[in-house]
Amino acid sequence: MSRTKILLDERDIPSHWYNVVADMPNPPAPPLGPDGQPIGPDALTAIFPEALIEQEVSAERWIPIPEEVREIYRLWRPSPLYRAHRLEQALGTPARIYYKYEGVSPAGSHKPNTAVAQAYYNREAGIRRLTTETGAGQWGSSLALVGEMFGIEVRVYMVKVSYEQKPFRRSMMQTWGAEVLASPTDQTEAGRKILAEDPDSPGSLGIAISEAVEEAASRDDTNYSLGSVLNHVLLHQTVIGQEAKKQFEMVDDYPDVIFAPCGGGSNFGGVAFPFFADKAAGKDVRLVAVEPASCPTLTRGHYAYDFGDTIGLTPLLKMYTLGHDFVPPGIHAGGLRYHGDSALVSQLYHEGLIEAVAVHQLPTFEAGVQFARAEGIIPAPESNHAIRACIDEALKCKETGEAKTLFFNLSGHGHFDMASYDKYFSGELEDFEYPAEAIDEALHHLPKVAGEG
Amino acid sequence: MSRTKILLDERDIPSHWYNVVADMPNPPAPPLGPDGQPIGPDALTAIFPEALIEQEVSAERWIPIPEEVREIYRLWRPSPLYRAHRLEQALGTPARIYYKYEGVSPAGSHKPNTAVAQAYYNREAGIRRLTTETGAGQWGSSLALVGEMFGIEVRVYMVKVSYEQKPFRRSMMQTWGAEVLASPTDQTEAGRKILAEDPDSPGSLGIAISEAVEEAASRDDTNYSLGSVLNHVLLHQTVIGQEAKKQFEMVDDYPDVIFAPCGGGSNFGGVAFPFFADKAAGKDVRLVAVEPASCPTLTRGHYAYDFGDTIGLTPLLKMYTLGHDFVPPGIHAGGLRYHGDSALVSQLYHEGLIEAVAVHQLPTFEAGVQFARAEGIIPAPESNHAIRACIDEALKCKETGEAKTLFFNLSGHGHFDMASYDKYFSGELEDFEYPAEAIDEALHHLPKVAGEG
Repeated sequence: MSRTKILLDERDIPSHWYNVVADMPNPPAPPLGPDGQPIGPDALTAIFPEALIEQEVSAERWIPIPEEVREIYRLWRPSPLYRAHRLEQALGTPARIYYKYEGVSPAGSHKPNTAVAQAYYNREAGIRRLTTETGAGQWGSSLALVGEMFGIEVRVYMVKVSYEQKPFRRSMMQTWGAEVLASPTDQTEAGRKILAEDPDSPGSLGIAISEAVEEAASRDDTNYSLGSVLNHVLLHQTVIGQEAKKQFEMVDDYPDVIFAPCGGGSNFGGVAFPFFADKAAGKDVRLVAVEPASCPTLTRGHYAYDFGDTIGLTPLLKMYTLGHDFVPPGIHAGGLRYHGDSALVSQLYHEGLIEAVAVHQLPTFEAGVQFARAEGIIPAPESNHAIRACIDEALKCKETGEAKTLFFNLSGHGHFDMASYDKYFSGELEDFEYPAEAIDEALHHLPKVAGEG
Repeated sequence: MSRTKILLDERDIPSHWYNVVADMPNPPAPPLGPDGQPIGPDALTAIFPEALIEQEVSAERWIPIPEEVREIYRLWRPSPLYRAHRLEQALGTPARIYYKYEGVSPAGSHKPNTAVAQAYYNREAGIRRLTTETGAGQWGSSLALVGEMFGIEVRVYMVKVSYEQKPFRRSMMQTWGAEVLASPTDQTEAGRKILAEDPDSPGSLGIAISEAVEEAASRDDTNYSLGSVLNHVLLHQTVIGQEAKKQFEMVDDYPDVIFAPCGGGSNFGGVAFPFFADKAAGKDVRLVAVEPASCPTLTRGHYAYDFGDTIGLTPLLKMYTLGHDFVPPGIHAGGLRYHGDSALVSQLYHEGLIEAVAVHQLPTFEAGVQFARAEGIIPAPESNHAIRACIDEALKCKETGEAKTLFFNLSGHGHFDMASYDKYFSGELEDFEYPAEAIDEALHHLPKVAGEG
C-alpha cells in the first residue's frame, strides 16, 4: 500500500506567503469608505498595524514570512497530507482522495496560521492588547494561543449561540489566558443596540465583529484582529496550499478537484490560492468552495459593496453578501455563519475562475461520521462541508469509473463539537433552506454606493 | 535553533513489540487462580483470544507486529518527538526537555496502540463483540475507534464519575459506533452488588472491570479487552519507546531521566521499557513512574497478590495495590484512578530498577497550564503528572546548573478535560492525601494466598 501520511520536514515550511492578487486577471475592487470613495491605508491605522495594512493592499506575489513566525509554525507545521485509503475503500471509488489535516495545531484548526502572523506584527508595532470575534471558537482560541506567546492581552467576543454550544472552547481560550465574552454584550454601543432590538439575540459573526472593532477603534492601546475575510488573512493561510503542492509532488500526483469549506474564505483561500497560481498558468484544476445552504453567500448572495460587520463600522467590501444585517440560523458550523465572504474569493467566483456549491447540515454530518469511521479523525462541522462535497464527487467517479484525484482541506477536528454530533445522532438537528424571498429582501439592505447598481 | 519536531517515516514504525520480560533479572511472579495455584493459559480463554494469552506469558524479547496492525498505526504513527524549546526558555533551565506526543492518535492518547492489536487478534479468533471498562474515556474511545475498523461491536462500561465529567468522550465513542454505559450499572451482578451497597457509587476502574469481565465470561460471542495493567497491553505500547529511541538517535541525544504517568502502567511501560533494555545492558537512565498522591499505588501500596477488579473475578496478580476494594477519590485524572498496577511495573519497582513519585492534583494542573502556555498543546490531566515531575527536575537542574536530558510521555491531549481545567481555574479543585491509616487497613482487604505473608 502506498503511503498514508505524506510528511514534510520543518525546513519545508514555506519561506513566503503567496499573494493571489499577483495572478488575478483583474485588480481587486478597492474597499470604499463611508463616502463611497476608495479608502487609503490610513483609514485602517486605528485598528491594524501598518505591516498588515501593507499586506492588505499589496500586489506582490511573494511576501516573506518573518523567522519568528516560522519558529512558532514549527510547533505543528508542516501539517500532514493524508491519502484516505480507508475512505476510498469504504466508498468503493476509483478516485484517489487526499486531505490536508490542519487539526494538528494546538487550537485544532488552520486558524493559528494567521493568528501567529497577526500577533507578531501587532507586537512589533508596540500593541499589547487585541480584540477579536469568534464564531465556532476556532479563531478565538487561535488568537488566545498566540497572544500568550507574544505577550499580548486578548479579549474575545464569542457569538452567543456558540458560547452556549461550546463552553469548552471558552475554557480553552482561558487556559491560554484570554478573556471571553458572549456577544452581543452590554459593553459596547453595538452590542447594546442589538440587545435593545432583541434581548435574546443568538449573536452572529457580524455583530461580534462590530463589538470588537468598536472597542479597538476607541482605545489607543488596542488593535483588532480578524480571523478571515481580509486579504492579509487569506495570504497567511497560503502556507496550507503551498505545503500541499510539495506533498503532491512527493507522491507524483496532482489534484483534479480541490474542496474547502467557505465561510469568510480563509480556509478556502489558504488551500486553493497556491493552486490557483497553477490554474492561472494554464493547469487544469477545479477549485470548489463549499458553503452551508442556510447561509449560501456565494451561490445565492448578491455581488455588491457591503459592510463586513452588522452595525456598519467597517469599510465597504465588494463581495457576495446576504446583507450585513442577515443573522444566519444557528447551524452547528459556527465558523460558516457569515453574511459575506472574502473580496478576493468573491471576485474570483464572479469571474468564473472558481466554483461554489451549497450543502445542507444533515448530509454534512452524515459525511463526517462516515469519514470518522473510516479514517479515525472526527472532523469539525465546518470541515464536514468539504468532506460532503468530496464524497459526492468520489461517488460520481464510482459511477463513471474515473480515477480522479480529489483533495480537501480537513481544516479542523471536532473535539469541541461533540454536542453537535450528539444532536445529529439523536435526530435533533434540522436543515435550514435560505428562503427565496430573502434574496430580494437582502437587496434593500445593501448600502447605497455611488456608481453601483 | 535546533529542530522542534523530530519525525520518523512510516517505514520506521516498529516491526516488533519489545517484551521487557526477556531483560528482567527475575521471571515475573505468575498470576494465581482462586486456589492460590499458578493459573495455566486455559483459565483465560473465556475472555481472551489465544494469541493474546500467548503474549501475556511470553518470554520472547521480540514479538512481530502483524502487517494489518501496522497499516492502522500509519493513521497516526510514528508520533512526533518534540524538543520543548519554549518550555525550557520559560523555565530558564539548562536542561534539554523532550516529549513524545501520543495525542496525535484519533482518540487523542496512546491507548489505540494496544486497541488496534487487541481488536485484530480478537477478529482473527472469530470474535465479533468486545466489552471493556474506561476511566477517563481514553481507553473506551480507543477501543470504539478500532472496533469499527475490525467489524467488532464494542460495549464500554464507563466509570460513572467520568461519564458525568466527560459527556463528550461518550459522544466520541458513539460517533465511532460503540455503546456506552455508566458503571456501576444494574445489568451485571457485579454492578447490582455495588449499587446495593452504595446507590450513589461514583464507580471506579475496578468496578467497571468487574462488570465488563462478568459479561464477557458469560457470553460465548463476547471477549473482554483491557486498556492497561496486563503484560500484553504494556507490550503493545512499546512502540512508543522504540520510536523515541530512534528519534533521540536522530538528534544525537539520550535521556538521563524519563517520566510517565502511571495508573495501570501501560503509559509508563510503553515509553520506559524499551529504555529499560538499555539500562539492563548497563546504560545509565532513570525511569520514573508518576502517580497521583490520592491513589499512590507504587509509593504507598502493598506489594502483594490481589485481584485486578473490585469484585474479585480476575486472577490474582502480584502487584503494588491499595486493596481491590479501594475506591479512589474523584480526581480529574480518571485514567490514574486504579487500585493496583501492572505486575511487570510493580516487580521492577520492587527490585529497585525503576523509580516512582506521587504528586498532588493542583500542582499537576499548574504544570499543565504552564506547559500549554509555552508549548501550545493542552495536556490531559493524566499527562500533567509527568509534566509536573519533569518540570520539578528541570527546576532542580536550574539550581545545580546541570544540562540533563529530560524526557516525558505526553500521553494525550486535554480536549475532553476542559471541565477539569475550568474547575482548576475557579478554585474548585482539591488535593486528596491518601490517609496513613488506610495503609494498614488495606492489608486486611488483601486476599489470603497460600505461602504469602
